[in-house]
Amino acid sequence: MAAVSAPSMLRAMNVLDLAADPAELTAALVDIESVSGAEQPIADAVEHALRTQAEHLEVRRCGNVVLARTALGRPRRVILAGHLDTVPVNDNLPSWREEGEHGTILHGLGSVDMKGGDATMLHLAATLREPRHDVTFVFYDCEEVEADRNGLGTVERELPEWLRADFAVLGEASNGVIEGGCQGTMRVEIRRAGRRAHSARAWMGSNAIHALAGPLATLAGYEPRSVEVDGLTYHEGLQAVGVTGGVAGNVVPDEAVLTVNHRFAPDRTPEQAVAHLRELFDDAELTVVDCSAPARPGLTDPVADQLVRAAGGSAVAKLGWTDVSRFAALGIPAVNFGPGDPALAHAQHEQVAMAEIRRVAEVMRQFLG
Amino acid sequence: MAAVSAPSMLRAMNVLDLAADPAELTAALVDIESVSGAEQPIADAVEHALRTQAEHLEVRRCGNVVLARTALGRPRRVILAGHLDTVPVNDNLPSWREEGEHGTILHGLGSVDMKGGDATMLHLAATLREPRHDVTFVFYDCEEVEADRNGLGTVERELPEWLRADFAVLGEASNGVIEGGCQGTMRVEIRRAGRRAHSARAWMGSNAIHALAGPLATLAGYEPRSVEVDGLTYHEGLQAVGVTGGVAGNVVPDEAVLTVNHRFAPDRTPEQAVAHLRELFDDAELTVVDCSAPARPGLTDPVADQLVRAAGGSAVAKLGWTDVSRFAALGIPAVNFGPGDPALAHAQHEQVAMAEIRRVAEVMRQFLG
Repeated sequence: MAAVSAPSMLRAMNVLDLAADPAELTAALVDIESVSGAEQPIADAVEHALRTQAEHLEVRRCGNVVLARTALGRPRRVILAGHLDTVPVNDNLPSWREEGEHGTILHGLGSVDMKGGDATMLHLAATLREPRHDVTFVFYDCEEVEADRNGLGTVERELPEWLRADFAVLGEASNGVIEGGCQGTMRVEIRRAGRRAHSARAWMGSNAIHALAGPLATLAGYEPRSVEVDGLTYHEGLQAVGVTGGVAGNVVPDEAVLTVNHRFAPDRTPEQAVAHLRELFDDAELTVVDCSAPARPGLTDPVADQLVRAAGGSAVAKLGWTDVSRFAALGIPAVNFGPGDPALAHAQHEQVAMAEIRRVAEVMRQFLG
Repeated sequence: MAAVSAPSMLRAMNVLDLAADPAELTAALVDIESVSGAEQPIADAVEHALRTQAEHLEVRRCGNVVLARTALGRPRRVILAGHLDTVPVNDNLPSWREEGEHGTILHGLGSVDMKGGDATMLHLAATLREPRHDVTFVFYDCEEVEADRNGLGTVERELPEWLRADFAVLGEASNGVIEGGCQGTMRVEIRRAGRRAHSARAWMGSNAIHALAGPLATLAGYEPRSVEVDGLTYHEGLQAVGVTGGVAGNVVPDEAVLTVNHRFAPDRTPEQAVAHLRELFDDAELTVVDCSAPARPGLTDPVADQLVRAAGGSAVAKLGWTDVSRFAALGIPAVNFGPGDPALAHAQHEQVAMAEIRRVAEVMRQFLG
């Protein structure tokens, strides 16, 4: 077996410099491929960096989740969380840079979703030794896949005490703006039955596709609510996302199914949202396919207010669904706050202004400094 | 090479006895497997039988179509036509019999569609040597498959003089009742466009599935015409037979397609029927996928009247589409008339009362005798 020198071992291990520029740290994280399910190399690198560059923290590994926390005896505790995984590589690794009007743009898979957010938190972990609140860092795996593989769930089951806090910040891309809470989302199927017949003798059957006319008219005429919750405005949505029906070109079809996605504001529980849909489509057979709960903005907490002030005083409602609602379910107010345009998440051409990463890191430092 | 005796050669050739009971002849035809594209054995048997048992006829082979005709110099000529092919075997060969309340029932593939009709015509070909009209018999292949393989089309292209006549009877199953003409049938696609967007930001898109609400309401409220043509009543139909749309569970879809089958009475041309649909769905993008022309009943011809009288004086409108319209397109009035319930065509349990076959043969003999 050949001897391996210490420096090359470190290189093989993806050494991260946490104290340096968080935008450079983002590029280093992007260059460690970490598609969901294959996060070990990035988790190893993060764990190693925290153990060697943030000795003031208690570090813990749990599968491919890396946890770290202060124990300063502060009255309040804040969780800073970010997932380490990405969607599959799409000819967008390694990272590359481009000089633009607004400075250097960093391109590459995960630059937006969400290694910029991870970098700001890792930078803070190593450089802010005396935060005003105790802080728990959670870098987790499998956010981009089925909910039951999500690393936050692993921690919830195996190390629940690591998820106790008064407030949480999820570093998902939010254009560097604080996004409060998130809407709930559910998919339902509206199934109409009919009676099959030859289309030349249609009066002997009953057309299930025709029976979708009512539900579709309801959808087309639906006026979604705009709801203010804790000072933020949420725009609900009710959209058909799929429709199927038909047996053959000469057969009156006996079944048709409309799939509808409902986005609902955090003033309603999932149960209330389902009840609303059942009222809307009263005579149809309605099945809930899946449902993720909404989260209230979490801005009523004084710790949240400190973050909003550090960020310049404003916050907006989160449109999509994120893991913020997992914290809400644990009773922890939570917000999204991270660099990058969320509209570019999962796009091949993910890119983020390196200056925005630095600005977000600076806001976080003001918030906790 | 082993010597083969004449009788066993004949057996190998499926010898048909045309002069015997047409119901027995039906069973013999059923037992010669003849799925579309593999009609050679049955065409060989039919050709051989006509050449040896109906020497008064001029017999002609054209691919797997067998033609035969009288040349008695009568002022009028009638075509009797039947296809020799069947849909694929479905564990329903060879034929078998069952004694029922109304006599013997013959079971097996093709017993309804349409070897009963073929048998009545073959029986007539061999036994009616002096018909009152000249008669052309057409036994053809590939009716159950794509229209451009249909044996009638082959004859039309290669031996057009064999399709000159004043009236045609197609022996397709009609419960032994004369069915006049046939409705046209067309399939159209109604395509609605939208603009794709994330369903959490639905206001940035335009939902193509929602845009089907209008066309579906039109379909659900449509009152199809009942039209009298030459004394027969045709019931039109307008039925959605398929619907598709949807990109993903969280995407506002940008396209949805409704497929509609229109059955239209023979008082309209295909062009008029399309114009009607364009008027009905005025603002939608409408594409005609396929269209088969209708055929008027053909009962205005005095020869047709003789057949109706021989059959007991009544006729009904044909619901489905048959090759009758091919004759109509050639300017030949045509009707369907054959033993068996058309609702059993293509069903695994095809079956026909043997007495009904004999009755239809008797009506045909009275008509032409």
